[in-house]
Amino acid sequence: MKVELCKVVRGCRLGVWTGFGQQHSLELPGCLLYTRCATVPHLTQDTLHTLSCLPTVTQVTLDSLAEHHEVLEEFQEGVRKFAGLHDTAVFCSLHDPATTCPTGHVTNKTVSVWGSGGRIEMTVAKFMAMQALIQPDCYQSMADGDTWQTNTSRKRVRKAVDRTLAHLDECLLLHHKTAQLKNTAVFGVVEGGDILEERVRSARETAKRPVDGFVLDGFQSPAMEQELRGQLITAVTAELPLEKPRLLQGVGRPDQVIACVEAGVDLFEGFFPFQVTERGSALCFQYSVTPDPEDAGSPPPTVLEINGERPAVEHPKENEDGNPETITQFEMNLKDIRYREDFRPLVEGCDCYCCGNHSRAYVHHLLVTNELLAGVLLMLHNTAHYLGFFRALREAIKREQLQELKTAVTTVDLRGRK
Amino acid sequence: MKVELCKVVRGCRLGVWTGFGQQHSLELPGCLLYTRCATVPHLTQDTLHTLSCLPTVTQVTLDSLAEHHEVLEEFQEGVRKFAGLHDTAVFCSLHDPATTCPTGHVTNKTVSVWGSGGRIEMTVAKFMAMQALIQPDCYQSMADGDTWQTNTSRKRVRKAVDRTLAHLDECLLLHHKTAQLKNTAVFGVVEGGDILEERVRSARETAKRPVDGFVLDGFQSPAMEQELRGQLITAVTAELPLEKPRLLQGVGRPDQVIACVEAGVDLFEGFFPFQVTERGSALCFQYSVTPDPEDAGSPPPTVLEINGERPAVEHPKENEDGNPETITQFEMNLKDIRYREDFRPLVEGCDCYCCGNHSRAYVHHLLVTNELLAGVLLMLHNTAHYLGFFRALREAIKREQLQELKTAVTTVDLRGRK
Repeated sequence: MKVELCKVVRGCRLGVWTGFGQQHSLELPGCLLYTRCATVPHLTQDTLHTLSCLPTVTQVTLDSLAEHHEVLEEFQEGVRKFAGLHDTAVFCSLHDPATTCPTGHVTNKTVSVWGSGGRIEMTVAKFMAMQALIQPDCYQSMADGDTWQTNTSRKRVRKAVDRTLAHLDECLLLHHKTAQLKNTAVFGVVEGGDILEERVRSARETAKRPVDGFVLDGFQSPAMEQELRGQLITAVTAELPLEKPRLLQGVGRPDQVIACVEAGVDLFEGFFPFQVTERGSALCFQYSVTPDPEDAGSPPPTVLEINGERPAVEHPKENEDGNPETITQFEMNLKDIRYREDFRPLVEGCDCYCCGNHSRAYVHHLLVTNELLAGVLLMLHNTAHYLGFFRALREAIKREQLQELKTAVTTVDLRGRK
Repeated sequence: MKVELCKVVRGCRLGVWTGFGQQHSLELPGCLLYTRCATVPHLTQDTLHTLSCLPTVTQVTLDSLAEHHEVLEEFQEGVRKFAGLHDTAVFCSLHDPATTCPTGHVTNKTVSVWGSGGRIEMTVAKFMAMQALIQPDCYQSMADGDTWQTNTSRKRVRKAVDRTLAHLDECLLLHHKTAQLKNTAVFGVVEGGDILEERVRSARETAKRPVDGFVLDGFQSPAMEQELRGQLITAVTAELPLEKPRLLQGVGRPDQVIACVEAGVDLFEGFFPFQVTERGSALCFQYSVTPDPEDAGSPPPTVLEINGERPAVEHPKENEDGNPETITQFEMNLKDIRYREDFRPLVEGCDCYCCGNHSRAYVHHLLVTNELLAGVLLMLHNTAHYLGFFRALREAIKREQLQELKTAVTTVDLRGRK
């Protein structure tokens, strides 16, 4: 397993992650396929596969699987087969990135996850036993991630870094004794809160261990300024070997994704389209960058041309409170009455199933009458739009047009606002 | 528009309903495709069309459409296009058959429907204006259906029959003046509660009008014994012309469907699989009838062979309280902990997407963790199973094996019970 870099432009790494799972590969920068209970919310595998260019890596989370360990134990064949997933690699992480995890439940020997039945406390032994049942292609080692809040003390942050390194060593020890994990890769977790020296120490120490990749944890706080986040991540990635992938957890907004790619991140969690879906919104931000006319020989960038009027957006101001319920500038909220008689597709020119078959007015109508199909249609569109953004991001790095992409993504059209 | 009868065996009519919509046809006995807000709950049109032999007629109901009349007025092109339905005929009826309608809100001039925003009162003029906006291929005329409860007085029942006939005459008058309904068929509604003479009078008078088919309303009360229901329906259908279809509303249980087909019913509403889905159950009743060895030249009956062990069912006793929340003998409730480690498909040999890809244990797991995909998977399976039952029913009439089918459907396997 390694990252083959094609190009590095001002910190951005364009490349391919290869050699994991059944010889899967994933273009970088990229995102994992978000799931809950190993299923993409609302979508069957068949519906999902109407989308082109799906990520080859599906993320599953221990919180939704831990309480079902008896079933997996009985089943014996791992979560991929249990959940009926098509051909995909599986990455197992600790927490669901779409929800905030309660703090204050980490001890020296245990971490906790929250399933539908409440809190489940895990020692390293239990954590590793779960991995042996889940049989992922990669997993993040156990970590004390309880220091993501910006007011965490230096002492607590230092303890989290120490614990996480100790957990990693224990995980690696058990990993090599577990037959079911023979072909499974381990990602070490970099902690350190918002304290630069601890971040650097955590990265440096983790990089000394025989891990296959790195998880950058604890950057999800909406209270953390993107500038600080970028500085910390830049300092961390400077300590990491070039050939190993870096997965950033908890960051999904397109503007922040671009900034973190500039800081050296390769991989993101794909939970953002789900959050947008759950509040009844459709992603509609622009990510079309005019192709370079001198580069006519290469295929056209796989970006979305939005013809005619730009979709109306709700919020002229940045969403800074970070509440996942809050509508961002990147979406239109289809519950709004303004869409009642708007018979255009969600995004003009989008080739997803929803935009090909349904209007904003119809999705509005499904939302106001609480029809469950609304979630199916929005999840399809939002996933397609988000994956399209990642394709455009890779293309923009290739063409050295990242600045143009940033402008496109953050430009808010003023027409159609209230 | 007419019914071409192939065979009538002891009251059961085997035939084809032809000449409606864009020259659609439907095999009888059959069921309409159930929708809410013109969408099959949980399923996109593409997911739905993974099922073979879907009904060619989609039912939409005024209750979920009436409050959106301004949108349909703006849209102008009817509900089929608004809802992005694939090639299908549309039948518009008054109430959602899957929910019980409050009583006591009918006046001489109006009926009421309940949308998500509450009660909507409709005169004949408003009712017909809605039909002009919906542009269905067939619709039921406005009716006073407030006499379905078994304790309704004779006087009230008589009034309902009179009002319904008056509504029909008014509807027909407006129908012929409405350009948008030029190619639309009207079904007259037979009322009469549980009073035989009123049922006969309603049927006879309705049959005198220039209607294209008949709706048999007011038989949905679970308190009505099937024997009485059968007698009343037999008396009604005896009054109706042979070449026009008869749609029975509110009856969906397979045993009752068979009994009502014997009483001369052609069409049913397909809401039963949805009710089963909403309580977390999978239909698993048997409808395989051993084919007649002398009839080897004809294609095999399209019934489901259940190999190996019969699925466990929950309730040895008939569900007689009629509460749509109550689990019937025809289903297994996958929320039950007994399915936690049951890795078989919902129904062995079923070729639906869910049974092809997922186990009972996985659906159980989705249900207990409140994952929305559970509804998608169950709705797919239950719709497939119910449509398979209707195919088997037609085949059984053809082969004169209805008694064998009845036995199969109502036989409850004793294995696996608590």
